[in-house]
Amino acid sequence: MAIRLFITGGTFDKTYDEITGRLVFQDTHVQEMLQLGRCRLDVSVRTLMMVDSLEMTDADRHLVLENCRSAAEERIVVTHGTDTMTDTARVLGEARLAKAIVLTGAMVPYAFGSSDGLFNLGSALSFVQALPHGVYVAMNGRCFPWDDVTKNRQLGVFETKK
Amino acid sequence: MAIRLFITGGTFDKTYDEITGRLVFQDTHVQEMLQLGRCRLDVSVRTLMMVDSLEMTDADRHLVLENCRSAAEERIVVTHGTDTMTDTARVLGEARLAKAIVLTGAMVPYAFGSSDGLFNLGSALSFVQALPHGVYVAMNGRCFPWDDVTKNRQLGVFETKK
Amino acid sequence: MAIRLFITGGTFDKTYDEITGRLVFQDTHVQEMLQLGRCRLDVSVRTLMMVDSLEMTDADRHLVLENCRSAAEERIVVTHGTDTMTDTARVLGEARLAKAIVLTGAMVPYAFGSSDGLFNLGSALSFVQALPHGVYVAMNGRCFPWDDVTKNRQLGVFETKK
Amino acid sequence: MAIRLFITGGTFDKTYDEITGRLVFQDTHVQEMLQLGRCRLDVSVRTLMMVDSLEMTDADRHLVLENCRSAAEERIVVTHGTDTMTDTARVLGEARLAKAIVLTGAMVPYAFGSSDGLFNLGSALSFVQALPHGVYVAMNGRCFPWDDVTKNRQLGVFETKK
Repeated sequence: MAIRLFITGGTFDKTYDEITGRLVFQDTHVQEMLQLGRCRLDVSVRTLMMVDSLEMTDADRHLVLENCRSAAEERIVVTHGTDTMTDTARVLGEARLAKAIVLTGAMVPYAFGSSDGLFNLGSALSFVQALPHGVYVAMNGRCFPWDDVTKNRQLGVFETKK
Repeated sequence: MAIRLFITGGTFDKTYDEITGRLVFQDTHVQEMLQLGRCRLDVSVRTLMMVDSLEMTDADRHLVLENCRSAAEERIVVTHGTDTMTDTARVLGEARLAKAIVLTGAMVPYAFGSSDGLFNLGSALSFVQALPHGVYVAMNGRCFPWDDVTKNRQLGVFETKK
Repeated sequence: MAIRLFITGGTFDKTYDEITGRLVFQDTHVQEMLQLGRCRLDVSVRTLMMVDSLEMTDADRHLVLENCRSAAEERIVVTHGTDTMTDTARVLGEARLAKAIVLTGAMVPYAFGSSDGLFNLGSALSFVQALPHGVYVAMNGRCFPWDDVTKNRQLGVFETKK
Repeated sequence: MAIRLFITGGTFDKTYDEITGRLVFQDTHVQEMLQLGRCRLDVSVRTLMMVDSLEMTDADRHLVLENCRSAAEERIVVTHGTDTMTDTARVLGEARLAKAIVLTGAMVPYAFGSSDGLFNLGSALSFVQALPHGVYVAMNGRCFPWDDVTKNRQLGVFETKK
């Protein structure tokens, strides 16, 4: 089953720059993570952008949408910063493509020992294979439909709307 | 959605004993892994045994089966050594319980930096939520039905039967 | 041989705050690092402050000096941010205490997988046992006297003055 | 200051073979560890053998001795399994070479998250620069002369003889 994986950046892929002491983007860690997971899926990875999701513009979100629309694959995972992940999910969800699209990310950069990234990547790649067409957010081991999910910023977790 | 997680040991949970220089079982790492994954699922963990799957007996497999049968939860993940994971999957599969059961494990102990364990746990917990009743093996990012899966021992990967 | 270990913060001890997405100070990682190193030295750890060394004031440096002066131990390690480590070394060096004092730190936070912190801590604790009285900077596997060391900010390494 | 680093194997360099499920030797991790430590010393690494120190023969120990003797460098670190590290230290010590030689190793393989290897390597490389000619064992943050050190097998630590 062919899967497309689009990279947009986010905490997931932040790296510590030891010269400046800042968290920055260099290359994505996703290929390394797929290797670590001994992943044998037919996954095609493409980096669309490398941005903090707080800085993602409407134009950026439409670029993600257009790439999802034109992808040959019916099953798509999008890595994304957690702060505006639900906004991008909404843009993708309202387009009602005949595809299964799962957004995921991480609360802690993969390069940190304590990251949830590898768990989340395994989760997103699994949900995208098993779920019907639709747009979802996979975080905290759970999977939310795009129109019933919000990030609780106090707790740093995703949950359904009240 | 309530999920039951049964621990049976396997490479997943092996630890290095620095006094003897051997790989041994102590406590399971699963709780620590769920925390790392910021997992917010309703998961009840129970350790059934802590064995190398090459030493798992028929009695052990039936203990796993009876625990799956009597569990209140309809969705069950079983951590298991990879060498005989498909044998236990067969015992569970032939019982045709009205439950979704996913077996997973790791090629490298979780305590090693290079382990696939966290990826696989995220994967198994996701498949078990999304798939219909049945018994499955989740490894290498893929999910196999119990009656069409084999471990390729030369490559160290799971695949469908020829 | 009794050793005093003073903590002042620096990159060494920075942690990723998953709620704010920033690098912050919480507790020091030094006790965990000593355990990891199976360290059996008689080390007394005391946290003097938890600051980025770019924000360290003259008053802070004199607090470090007074603690070195009044410590019962003759051998002292100070963990410190790398940006102004040589400034604090100068304050300590000019006081000409009859003690061996070694400053060390890290280019990458210990909590990151790619940190040099554990290597540097092993190095500093060893130099402080073996060297005569004086004030030193231990970084990059090397040990520099306080009056002949500078941080090369382009390369992110310590070296002797030209 | 030129340093020679001889590799002999030991727990330090053991790796998990995911096909056989055993701990084995492949390449040494020392170059990777020196990079992680941002080590800027002039270190020449040479692998003499890759063995479990329980299987090291008298011939092996004399090979280590002859390499120490003929090395151009006056300062030498030897990585070694902990079980017979003190035996090799004795062979080197009795030869009374006009060199500083420090043996070190690890209680847990470097490839495990919980390894003391990086701490010990930082420690050994520091002691070898600072100590006078002689043969030493650097473990647990301490440095022992070759004729007053023993491994306490119950506790898994090195200590002086009673």
